Amino acid sequence: MGLSDRSLITMDDLSSREMEALFSMTDEMADTMGDQYNVCQGKIMASLFLEPSTRTRLSFETAMHRLGGNVITVADAKVTSLAKGESLADMARVVGSYADIIVVRHPWEGAARVVADYAGIPVINAGDGGHQHPTQTLCDLYTIRKERGDIRGLRIALWGDLKYGRTIHSLIFALAKFGADMLFCPSPGLEVPENIVRKLIAEYGGQVERVAASDRAVKDAFPLDAVYVTPSSPHQLAMMPNINLEAELREGVDALYVTRPQKERFITGTEQEGLKERYPVVDKKLLRGREFRKTIVMHPLPRVDELAYDIDADPRSIYFQQAARGVPIRMALLALLLGAREWPASSTAGPTIPGVEYPVYRRDSGVRCDNPACVSVQESEAQYLKPEFKVVSRDPLTLRCVYCEHGYQPEYVATTDWHEGKLEYKIYHRADSHWAKRIKPENLIVFTSAEEAEAHGYKAGRYPGTQHRENDTGE
Amino acid sequence: MGLSDRSLITMDDLSSREMEALFSMTDEMADTMGDQYNVCQGKIMASLFLEPSTRTRLSFETAMHRLGGNVITVADAKVTSLAKGESLADMARVVGSYADIIVVRHPWEGAARVVADYAGIPVINAGDGGHQHPTQTLCDLYTIRKERGDIRGLRIALWGDLKYGRTIHSLIFALAKFGADMLFCPSPGLEVPENIVRKLIAEYGGQVERVAASDRAVKDAFPLDAVYVTPSSPHQLAMMPNINLEAELREGVDALYVTRPQKERFITGTEQEGLKERYPVVDKKLLRGREFRKTIVMHPLPRVDELAYDIDADPRSIYFQQAARGVPIRMALLALLLGAREWPASSTAGPTIPGVEYPVYRRDSGVRCDNPACVSVQESEAQYLKPEFKVVSRDPLTLRCVYCEHGYQPEYVATTDWHEGKLEYKIYHRADSHWAKRIKPENLIVFTSAEEAEAHGYKAGRYPGTQHRENDTGE
Amino acid sequence: MGLSDRSLITMDDLSSREMEALFSMTDEMADTMGDQYNVCQGKIMASLFLEPSTRTRLSFETAMHRLGGNVITVADAKVTSLAKGESLADMARVVGSYADIIVVRHPWEGAARVVADYAGIPVINAGDGGHQHPTQTLCDLYTIRKERGDIRGLRIALWGDLKYGRTIHSLIFALAKFGADMLFCPSPGLEVPENIVRKLIAEYGGQVERVAASDRAVKDAFPLDAVYVTPSSPHQLAMMPNINLEAELREGVDALYVTRPQKERFITGTEQEGLKERYPVVDKKLLRGREFRKTIVMHPLPRVDELAYDIDADPRSIYFQQAARGVPIRMALLALLLGAREWPASSTAGPTIPGVEYPVYRRDSGVRCDNPACVSVQESEAQYLKPEFKVVSRDPLTLRCVYCEHGYQPEYVATTDWHEGKLEYKIYHRADSHWAKRIKPENLIVFTSAEEAEAHGYKAGRYPGTQHRENDTGE
Repeated sequence: MGLSDRSLITMDDLSSREMEALFSMTDEMADTMGDQYNVCQGKIMASLFLEPSTRTRLSFETAMHRLGGNVITVADAKVTSLAKGESLADMARVVGSYADIIVVRHPWEGAARVVADYAGIPVINAGDGGHQHPTQTLCDLYTIRKERGDIRGLRIALWGDLKYGRTIHSLIFALAKFGADMLFCPSPGLEVPENIVRKLIAEYGGQVERVAASDRAVKDAFPLDAVYVTPSSPHQLAMMPNINLEAELREGVDALYVTRPQKERFITGTEQEGLKERYPVVDKKLLRGREFRKTIVMHPLPRVDELAYDIDADPRSIYFQQAARGVPIRMALLALLLGAREWPASSTAGPTIPGVEYPVYRRDSGVRCDNPACVSVQESEAQYLKPEFKVVSRDPLTLRCVYCEHGYQPEYVATTDWHEGKLEYKIYHRADSHWAKRIKPENLIVFTSAEEAEAHGYKAGRYPGTQHRENDTGE
Repeated sequence: MGLSDRSLITMDDLSSREMEALFSMTDEMADTMGDQYNVCQGKIMASLFLEPSTRTRLSFETAMHRLGGNVITVADAKVTSLAKGESLADMARVVGSYADIIVVRHPWEGAARVVADYAGIPVINAGDGGHQHPTQTLCDLYTIRKERGDIRGLRIALWGDLKYGRTIHSLIFALAKFGADMLFCPSPGLEVPENIVRKLIAEYGGQVERVAASDRAVKDAFPLDAVYVTPSSPHQLAMMPNINLEAELREGVDALYVTRPQKERFITGTEQEGLKERYPVVDKKLLRGREFRKTIVMHPLPRVDELAYDIDADPRSIYFQQAARGVPIRMALLALLLGAREWPASSTAGPTIPGVEYPVYRRDSGVRCDNPACVSVQESEAQYLKPEFKVVSRDPLTLRCVYCEHGYQPEYVATTDWHEGKLEYKIYHRADSHWAKRIKPENLIVFTSAEEAEAHGYKAGRYPGTQHRENDTGE
Repeated sequence: MGLSDRSLITMDDLSSREMEALFSMTDEMADTMGDQYNVCQGKIMASLFLEPSTRTRLSFETAMHRLGGNVITVADAKVTSLAKGESLADMARVVGSYADIIVVRHPWEGAARVVADYAGIPVINAGDGGHQHPTQTLCDLYTIRKERGDIRGLRIALWGDLKYGRTIHSLIFALAKFGADMLFCPSPGLEVPENIVRKLIAEYGGQVERVAASDRAVKDAFPLDAVYVTPSSPHQLAMMPNINLEAELREGVDALYVTRPQKERFITGTEQEGLKERYPVVDKKLLRGREFRKTIVMHPLPRVDELAYDIDADPRSIYFQQAARGVPIRMALLALLLGAREWPASSTAGPTIPGVEYPVYRRDSGVRCDNPACVSVQESEAQYLKPEFKVVSRDPLTLRCVYCEHGYQPEYVATTDWHEGKLEYKIYHRADSHWAKRIKPENLIVFTSAEEAEAHGYKAGRYPGTQHRENDTGE
């Protein structure tokens, strides 16, 4: 099976083999751009940008035009029927009956997944809130590959807002898939979210090592916070409990991937406060460091203040070439997803989508994702979307929302199995109790609070009311 | 004469014969969509959506692209020169000199008529305020025909906001033209406007019967308010002064046409207040009624709360197929209006546009349409648009605005005939007096008030000032 | 060299010879519009309208479609990454790597110049604040030429807002280039800016004569304020110190170019106050004047109140034909700039871009343009744009900003030459002193104030502190 008729929502949807094949086709598109004018003739791409964008929308539309296809565009959410309260599912079904492929950007995390579930045609995620932005990542990987030849074994520094940067989130998983090492260099307070670190370790292997505070003092301007070392990497540090920053930096950074603060997604006032003073800047002075001698400097753009204009003319600065490559990579992707070009046979051998299989948690009533930006908790969507999770860990019990992929750790659990027939068995337990661990995934019921469990008719089993926490620990 | 070079502003512009021919061409477009890519090559459609839209705009643009044509788009009124105070006439003249056809949506009622009057090229009304939306109606009729084979004699329930729903207004006249019966099921306070009922009876024949309050109690969830019975329909109820709701419903409903509340057009606070509790909902429970056993459920979309998601999977729910048909029907319409496809000979026999001929009332000074949403009373338009009415009734004297089609009943009249030469004959009368009825249409002058008549130099004829009402009645 | 790969930012970029060739190609485009569908196939035009527009954007997009090319559009600045703080240079570089040509409108004066400097592809200025709008001027000139045969020697009245009207500013230079005379008829307070009058006299020759106040009383409705007489014009008035308005008007006006008040650019409250009463109106009554017997009435549109609807049907009113000509003129321009059509050999003989060569003033520190609407002083742009000026006059010393072309007269100067080696020579002078005039252009340093000069380490040379003004005059 090739990419035809498939959607691209997260980096999970592409194997490294498929990406390699996509990059080869991108080379071809870039070399013969003027000859691609008949590839998608008669096809229609719906370009639904329900959050501001220039670059991504224009590069998708350019790509479709270079392939000879047509485009229908929504460039502003305020002028759509979504403003009248329409759900994403309804919009997806209707636009899916007009166009041949949908490209969607939306402020809600998981929105592209919902559109793909209902559209009936291929859907490309062009950025869903702070979640993912896979085509930017394809463009980034392609650029690294063009500049460095190979991605495996490279040392890539991810810089700036690693918390809300969706391009960062997509890139982390893609680099892990290709076996690159990563240096996390966040602005203080904007570190990589825990759910991403957990997924990285659990599904891609390798290790994430925190940099010791003492080491951090070594280089003031280089805000290294943690290092991810891939499992296959023959790396001396992978064995060490503490990273030696000096040693680490001596080897040099292959690429510096800079991002702007995603202020529009900040939740707390403290994230905003003093940001400008705190946010690490990449400029001429920083690049004088010997660890950056051969570094390529990348940025998904737009930049604000974190990337100084004084390095634009530096040969290491390749962010404008990076942006330009957005067109051929999207041409290749559109041609493949529309079935206008054949997927090379080599890429389809083996499993197309790798990944761990987790048990699914899906109940009509009960927990909702606790990410306020998740598509599943929005008023217009909650009326038809059932919350759905993957049980990604039993200890601690962790559910991952299938839409936004945020992790969620419920406090109480019960089982559908135990109370069958006998009402006295309808009891609930603390999620970290040994009782909880005995529940089979298919029977699991989770509760946000003891009150909720009791409202559903469950009793605190064995433990006297307010005391059960201590009792349980005592077992 | 075919449709080529004609505009489509209201359902009056198409005969049922022409619609049948259009539907045949739509069948052809739908079956061979991939082969239509050269039909409109080199043609340009201006897509002017000066009020928010997704569905209608994108389906028109998709249709034009599937025909191989090009599109220029305005998707937001705020970014146009209309925001600088430009009139619709000026915009129409300019865009008319660029494009080959204009599709226009506008919040003012009658706006599409003004654009058509000045553009010099074919214009399609894609919704003008609460007035009409004829291409949605074509899509609706085509869907009924596909699902039921024929429209004549069907029993269609119109549900929800029958007051401000422009798709409802267009559909009522179209269904009457095809000889369908209609059940009006409004949310309380959102009944079909009087001017539409009057036009329906006067021009299409048939009868509108109110449902007795006692009958209404029979079925709580089915807010039947009135029934329209077509003249040709061999219908026992057409003879009865009161509708028997039970008997009426026993025969079953062929289609249930649901609409959302058009909140953006509500004028009074009372229309908004308590709306959610009052507005009738179509859901699984309602559809269990035996009168809906074979009903197709339709909706122009977007929906809000009036159509529950729990019936989406029901085979009677066809609203997404209905939306999908918007593309081939608009392809057929564009191809015909642009002259890119020939109109079948059969459709052009007989009168293309039926309708009653009414005397025209048009004077430089005097009455303005009293509909605040009418295009003719807007500041930017009033400077060049002369109010124009059709005299649709003499008893009571009723003028219908040619733009928004709202009815207007002036209180006082005079004649241009009587006062020629002799100033003492320059007198005015009450519009319901027998003097008024003697005035020839071409000589008629109407006044909003006695003050206005006197300001124009007319005197209350015969009747002493404040007493004239009584005197007149006494004649 | 032809127009291919060149940009069109101001009227300076085109010689009259090139314009004549462009007009010939426009004739051809207009006559065979349906045959141009393959001229730009596969080419992409980026249509970046970062300020509201209908007419200009739609006519450019129509032109590109008629040539068979494709279009990517930004119709609203709020939905772009500029709203995230991105600079014009970054946007230009990125879009320049997607498209083949850029058409840009922007509220900042000089914005199109910046885009052209960074895009790497041809750029067309579709209006930059109150600065210029060259394609509107091409459309205007083409219209005059079609209606009058030739432009040379005509007498054109420019009417309304001559201060903020960018179409006026471009037209003034173009008419001077073609040797037309101009009558300036501003609304009081909205006269042609001084920097434009100065450039007109210095670079195009000819004379601007003010109309005496006594003469102005002659005709109330005709607000003639000044007359520009071209150098080659055998004009009796050119010799006279005062214009004789009666004599002037006896010869008649060939074209009346009306403009609306550009309220969105007004800076002071007094410009807005009482505007409606003050602003001169062109209507039926005015056109009864014998000086308008053969006048063509033009307007770039949109109009507001300055052009009455009662003259729309008058054969002298040609503003709608003028608008329609926007399409073929832009087709010709796009085809030439994209290299899709060859530039006729005749046009390329001689210098393509005429103009005076001025010394350049460009220093890292020091003066900034004092026009608050200039692109170079905006926060997002000032971080990479160095202020740059042309020294257009030594007496009084006048710098012209290369971006917005506003004039700037610094108060103090110094030289880089004098202080070499010896600190006591690091002195500054008043700009109007004879010392100042001895400074070679390449050594010139200017200061906004004495304080600024002293902050840079300069001392007031020879003159005791507060007294130096008098001393200097005494020399």
